[in-house]
Amino acid sequence: MNHLLGQRAQDRLKQLAECSASEFGVTRLPFTKEHHKANALLKGWMEEAGLTVHVDDAGTLIGRYDAGDNAPTLLMGSHQDSVKQGGSYDGIMGIVLPIIALDALNRQGGKLPYSVEILAFADEEGVRFPTALVGPRALAGTLDERVIDRKDKNGITLRHALKDFGVNPDNIGLLKRDASKILGFIETHIEQGPVLEHEDVPLGVVSAISGIERHQLTFTGQAAHAGTVPMHLRKDALTAAAEVIQEAEKLAIKIPDLLATVGQLDVTPNVVNAIPGNVSMSIELRSPIDEVREKAGEILQVFARDTALLRGLDCDIKRTYSQSATECDHSLQLAITRAIVATQCRVHQLPSGATHDASAMSDLTGVAMLFVRCKKGISHNPAEYASDEDMGLAIDALISLLINIRS
Amino acid sequence: MNHLLGQRAQDRLKQLAECSASEFGVTRLPFTKEHHKANALLKGWMEEAGLTVHVDDAGTLIGRYDAGDNAPTLLMGSHQDSVKQGGSYDGIMGIVLPIIALDALNRQGGKLPYSVEILAFADEEGVRFPTALVGPRALAGTLDERVIDRKDKNGITLRHALKDFGVNPDNIGLLKRDASKILGFIETHIEQGPVLEHEDVPLGVVSAISGIERHQLTFTGQAAHAGTVPMHLRKDALTAAAEVIQEAEKLAIKIPDLLATVGQLDVTPNVVNAIPGNVSMSIELRSPIDEVREKAGEILQVFARDTALLRGLDCDIKRTYSQSATECDHSLQLAITRAIVATQCRVHQLPSGATHDASAMSDLTGVAMLFVRCKKGISHNPAEYASDEDMGLAIDALISLLINIRS
Repeated sequence: MNHLLGQRAQDRLKQLAECSASEFGVTRLPFTKEHHKANALLKGWMEEAGLTVHVDDAGTLIGRYDAGDNAPTLLMGSHQDSVKQGGSYDGIMGIVLPIIALDALNRQGGKLPYSVEILAFADEEGVRFPTALVGPRALAGTLDERVIDRKDKNGITLRHALKDFGVNPDNIGLLKRDASKILGFIETHIEQGPVLEHEDVPLGVVSAISGIERHQLTFTGQAAHAGTVPMHLRKDALTAAAEVIQEAEKLAIKIPDLLATVGQLDVTPNVVNAIPGNVSMSIELRSPIDEVREKAGEILQVFARDTALLRGLDCDIKRTYSQSATECDHSLQLAITRAIVATQCRVHQLPSGATHDASAMSDLTGVAMLFVRCKKGISHNPAEYASDEDMGLAIDALISLLINIRS
Repeated sequence: MNHLLGQRAQDRLKQLAECSASEFGVTRLPFTKEHHKANALLKGWMEEAGLTVHVDDAGTLIGRYDAGDNAPTLLMGSHQDSVKQGGSYDGIMGIVLPIIALDALNRQGGKLPYSVEILAFADEEGVRFPTALVGPRALAGTLDERVIDRKDKNGITLRHALKDFGVNPDNIGLLKRDASKILGFIETHIEQGPVLEHEDVPLGVVSAISGIERHQLTFTGQAAHAGTVPMHLRKDALTAAAEVIQEAEKLAIKIPDLLATVGQLDVTPNVVNAIPGNVSMSIELRSPIDEVREKAGEILQVFARDTALLRGLDCDIKRTYSQSATECDHSLQLAITRAIVATQCRVHQLPSGATHDASAMSDLTGVAMLFVRCKKGISHNPAEYASDEDMGLAIDALISLLINIRS
């Protein structure tokens, strides 16, 4: 069975990929005509699955299976938008798969003892406006409403874009949900990394969404002629930077679930025959455990300062960004685990290094994520790919989860 | 006495610094009106010192003290040109100091048992034409005459510039000297590095002009999301580069007289949240001993390739440039050493990491160099500075050398 449903998912994602502002890859920004077109497709499939559809005042398309006023509600879904020239799966696959799962249940005439809503959030990537996650934040009641007056690069405010989209942003404060009536939020998403492929398993259960912090580090030494300054009189900013790069890597290899990346590094004057006088670089740390990440950040700050001290350089290091980890709800993780077991796949648990709608939803309710293997771990790229078979298994797991979560 | 002569040197260098195309720093390119002006000053001082002056067909201004046809000739000097917005000492100080030394001997009525020529070469820096060292190469008979047809950025050939300067480049092949009649070449130059200042000595004797080689290294790994790829699945080009930077530094610290510099390094994509997929970098090695430099180059190439192999990266490394070391003549080094001792200064021997006219002159005759301390090791910069006192000591040393070298 799953093969047919997987093919259906692939076909629907192909149709959705055509709702794109770019020919190469998928470019679908929020509140655009491509968003309208995608929502029209999603709405049709939601209604076909027996769901009642509306768009809320944050621009979230919602398809509801209603089990009566007193029944609690399970929320599912992800975001419809893409990055510029992105792929066909990131976000939107997490809307398409639960629709197909609910449709299959509906066709079997099954009744669930709880309501389900499938949420198609407008904007997770934050490409168009200098804000993101407005949809889930409105549901969680954590939205700073001032962001609604932020503008895109054409000077259009988010408020104006929402009105143009046919909703009323003035009522966005009313969207906050009553947590006591929510069972949780389950997001299905491509892994966007190579772990499941490397482990040879199609599905994964997410333990936590990693926290992130970023540091900006500048070493200032003395630019000088590469031929006239002996090694012991140099103040080489790049050899100091190399020590920090190595230390960050060593730390992250030693400590489970810590990732450390020096992604950006610029050398001045950056010529063959001059000792580098200045290096500016980033250090990014991610971990599902905030204490681990924060301790690693402190260790690397101290290491950078000590390196500068020993080498006679100046060192400026600042933490420029930090975001806490989101632990996934244990009972929801267990439900996903059981659902994966039901598909006869091996269960692999892993943290999510990327941020998701589930991060914002965790302020409202317990969250959990089902990861689907993607080819070579490629994402945010037209080469993004998940197979029919893997998506079919994910749909089977979601059907099993929907049947068993409250049984 | 040396203090007055040092002041005179400082005063003359100040006058020469005014022969500049730029207000900020000294910009004196070969065969320009600034070159003409500087040569007019030098010619006057040479004649005042009793020298007979002419310009040879390579544009070298030559002042000759003649001890008769059968006497051998000692050559001294350096280059008159500067880099763009350079300093007042680099090169031209090595013309001014020996003129003052010979002038002092002349005033004392001393007769030398050998001839002396002070050479003011036109072009060592190679800023105007894509060639350099034409003057010394013509004397050594190593000039590739095709370079005379190379053009500056205004399309003027070196041939045309030489003719305009009043000499005949067609006769440049006739300038080759008879080595058997030459005693050697002694170049006085600011150190352009911090060693003498660090050692607290005003003068140094150069052991050799270091050889140079440059390698260009590219690591290619896999750019990927910094949050989704665990450390053991990464192909990070920058962590590999950091290993090579550290290894090059370690090697150069361990091995005397080896300098290793990674001066240029570029990261792709160079963003905070992406694992670097590509790093392109230079490695420059300098040593007075060619075998040491070449072995170090081989070691680092093997190290880079092994690093790539262990990390699953591609590695492309090529030696893009190499230039042999010039060992300084032992008896001339001894003569300089004795002359420094005569000034009651401590003798410090050091290699020259930068290239000089002496490198090209070594194809004709034995060469040696007297280094003069410069402030903070700064050169090729308007802040370049040597003190009256240090230049006075250098003049004293040159006088002593001239008196004693053939006694």
